[in-house]
Amino acid sequence: MVDQETKTPTDADAGAGDPSGHPTDLSDHLEERLRDALQEGAADTVRALVEPLNAADVADLLEHLATDDRRAFLDVLGEDLDADVLPELDEEVLADVVDHLEVEQIAAAVVEMDSDDAITVLEDLDEADKREILEAIPDADRIAIEQGLAYPENTAGRLMQREVVTVPTYYTVGETIDFLRQNAERDVSYLPDQFYDIYVVDPQFRPLGAVSLSRLLRSKRPVRVTDIMDTNLKRILVSTDREEVAFIFRQRDLVSASVIDQGGRLVGVIHIDDVVDVIEEEHEEDIMRMGGLAEADLYSGFLKTTKARFSWLLINLGTAIAASLVIGLFEGTIQQMVALAVLMPIVASMGGNAGTQTLTVAVRALATKELTSTNAMRVIGKEILVGTANGALFAVIAGVVAWLWFQSAGIGVVIALAMVVNLVVAGLAGSAIPVVLDKLKIDPAVASGVFLTTVTDVVGFFAFLGLAAWMLI
Amino acid sequence: MVDQETKTPTDADAGAGDPSGHPTDLSDHLEERLRDALQEGAADTVRALVEPLNAADVADLLEHLATDDRRAFLDVLGEDLDADVLPELDEEVLADVVDHLEVEQIAAAVVEMDSDDAITVLEDLDEADKREILEAIPDADRIAIEQGLAYPENTAGRLMQREVVTVPTYYTVGETIDFLRQNAERDVSYLPDQFYDIYVVDPQFRPLGAVSLSRLLRSKRPVRVTDIMDTNLKRILVSTDREEVAFIFRQRDLVSASVIDQGGRLVGVIHIDDVVDVIEEEHEEDIMRMGGLAEADLYSGFLKTTKARFSWLLINLGTAIAASLVIGLFEGTIQQMVALAVLMPIVASMGGNAGTQTLTVAVRALATKELTSTNAMRVIGKEILVGTANGALFAVIAGVVAWLWFQSAGIGVVIALAMVVNLVVAGLAGSAIPVVLDKLKIDPAVASGVFLTTVTDVVGFFAFLGLAAWMLI
Repeated sequence: MVDQETKTPTDADAGAGDPSGHPTDLSDHLEERLRDALQEGAADTVRALVEPLNAADVADLLEHLATDDRRAFLDVLGEDLDADVLPELDEEVLADVVDHLEVEQIAAAVVEMDSDDAITVLEDLDEADKREILEAIPDADRIAIEQGLAYPENTAGRLMQREVVTVPTYYTVGETIDFLRQNAERDVSYLPDQFYDIYVVDPQFRPLGAVSLSRLLRSKRPVRVTDIMDTNLKRILVSTDREEVAFIFRQRDLVSASVIDQGGRLVGVIHIDDVVDVIEEEHEEDIMRMGGLAEADLYSGFLKTTKARFSWLLINLGTAIAASLVIGLFEGTIQQMVALAVLMPIVASMGGNAGTQTLTVAVRALATKELTSTNAMRVIGKEILVGTANGALFAVIAGVVAWLWFQSAGIGVVIALAMVVNLVVAGLAGSAIPVVLDKLKIDPAVASGVFLTTVTDVVGFFAFLGLAAWMLI
Repeated sequence: MVDQETKTPTDADAGAGDPSGHPTDLSDHLEERLRDALQEGAADTVRALVEPLNAADVADLLEHLATDDRRAFLDVLGEDLDADVLPELDEEVLADVVDHLEVEQIAAAVVEMDSDDAITVLEDLDEADKREILEAIPDADRIAIEQGLAYPENTAGRLMQREVVTVPTYYTVGETIDFLRQNAERDVSYLPDQFYDIYVVDPQFRPLGAVSLSRLLRSKRPVRVTDIMDTNLKRILVSTDREEVAFIFRQRDLVSASVIDQGGRLVGVIHIDDVVDVIEEEHEEDIMRMGGLAEADLYSGFLKTTKARFSWLLINLGTAIAASLVIGLFEGTIQQMVALAVLMPIVASMGGNAGTQTLTVAVRALATKELTSTNAMRVIGKEILVGTANGALFAVIAGVVAWLWFQSAGIGVVIALAMVVNLVVAGLAGSAIPVVLDKLKIDPAVASGVFLTTVTDVVGFFAFLGLAAWMLI
């Protein structure tokens, strides 16, 4: 510790001072050395490598290792495994770690955690594991955790920390500080480790206002807390969806918010660092949905991954067959002019990509509540215009390419017209589909893409082959 | 204010108490009423509607309104426009607002803001507007802002707040609290409004440790700050990329971090609420890149939007033509069996979608540093296996469909084999392309998709038509 105090900030610990630019990145070098040490059974080397790391780094190592190495690593760490590692783990890896460790060790780790971390760990486990661990936990702790788990998943109740600092209305700044100092001496467990606000509550335990610590510290001892409290308090109902909680935090730049039950009583507080995790998870979910996945499956096993991806691919097979049916209508036309078969994927593909651009903007704007019924018609109108303009540009380019390639002005005109039609439709469908799905209370992020591709494929093939059948044959 | 204090949490203000479930959502009703009032020129109605809203809500309204209504709205608000609205605006809307307002009004608003907010507003403006506003700002404020703007864009220097609370090593808890109380009385501008940590610095102003306010409050007055400070301090170099800053905050669950210059001196502090904005912007960027867009363009004009999307579509045209060239090789085969033209998009489309699933997981895992060279081969191996398994399943389904549709077992076998080939290639390409691009220091999020689609289209058409030419004709 003395060494750390006098450490100058140009040390490796200074973070960005590291020339690699990735100071907190676990160097691959370390991972390789750890893996080698594990495979050689060199327990002392493993312990020496892990010693300087923090919990998040150890969690990353556990995630990156292959299953066998991970278990060997756990065996070496034994009782030294830091409890804080568990809440940092990916769900799949956590399940494996829990299966490998003794129930008593996990129960002991859970007891050590803050209530929100304990819930994070337990809620991801399967029912049997969860039961077994809860039964190994002392009654008082177990009841607190079970109360937290009783709130529905993805609600404010699961996110919040139950340890809150509250004072009655008649307290002064001085009494509040004394109260905190006395409790610190007695090391009471119902006070949180870290907090940023003190809540002033009425006798029914309803929050009347909050005093930020920086405000409290700058006020004189005789000042009443009610005189310096911020009454413009954000009260979040315990049943609020966590996505909505994240939206409120972002919109109001909050650092913490009080959580109340149906009766208006203060039951907990949500801190921004918990919200950051929600934002990250929602982000992950958005990205995965766009890529046609239910969830990230980097750490999932082969079978589970195959199964999860199958259903999306099956839906995609349906839309691909729909497109093929359209092509099938024009078998005779293609027979007479094979050049059409060569060129037809171009129109469909351009429509799909232009539509996806529009769709991406629209789905995102709906999620951030920037696209509302007030501006929906304006946005759709703009997208149709953009589709027309890019349609005209690519009509010229594709038309000239097709003309030169097949030495036929007619085929150039057909692909040009089909391109305009499909890009206008792509702009309309890409913006209107998510808006309509949102109105129908269907999540546009999940369903829009399938509808869009079906539309741009069907229209693309139909416009191109239909125009060709009509104009060229 | 008295009213607010006694307000029960079941009021509309209580947030989630609102039955709509979107308490902070601006109701469309409000937007419509505002628009009507603006168009009727009913200034008093407009002011009455806006009065209860906070800055973020007003910013949302400005964003949602059409340009004419927005300007009318600004004219009605006049000097009453809250300075805090500006940093909340989208870049495009901000530029329009700045063009419409008087330079003096903007300069006055910028002076009122904290240094980090002032920089947020100014950095997004074009050079001429920025100059004009800076010249209208008093010297002392201008120099501080210019120093902030001197740090390269997207670095810790731009994110940080320059106002930091520091104390020397010989201070006690009591002296620190007295120091804060005295400065609060004198209302000095170099102290931040809100802060969470106090930094202990040496005579060279290098940070030695931090004391969180909750720790400070629980300690007795005679205790030395050096005895309670946390020396395991995260020091971020002022030139660190902001994406790296966000990664450090997430990895370590930080609420604030100190920023140092090359000499190790404390120059500012970054708070988690600024990092949340970075996370949001990076998220937006990720989503847009996946959708083939450089940036979100909801508020961009028609011409700018068309131009921005054109380049991505042009690249896509290139890959579509590459796929067509492959089809062109088999014109003779298609001539003899038109059913091939009908079925060929199915194989290419399934490969594209399966590859995108893999790609999404891989690109995301690279961004979160979960995919490293330690586990890259294992991940690629798993993806090939998943591709083989789903390839086999869809080979059976597509094979049977094709067989029944065209009454030809041969065509069923060809599509089945092509499906397996393309889904295995999709798994390999979807995981290996991002890893290789990352090694080559090319952003995998931007470039992977194009490469992947080219591979799955070319392989899909080549495998299907090639096998057909070889086996059926």
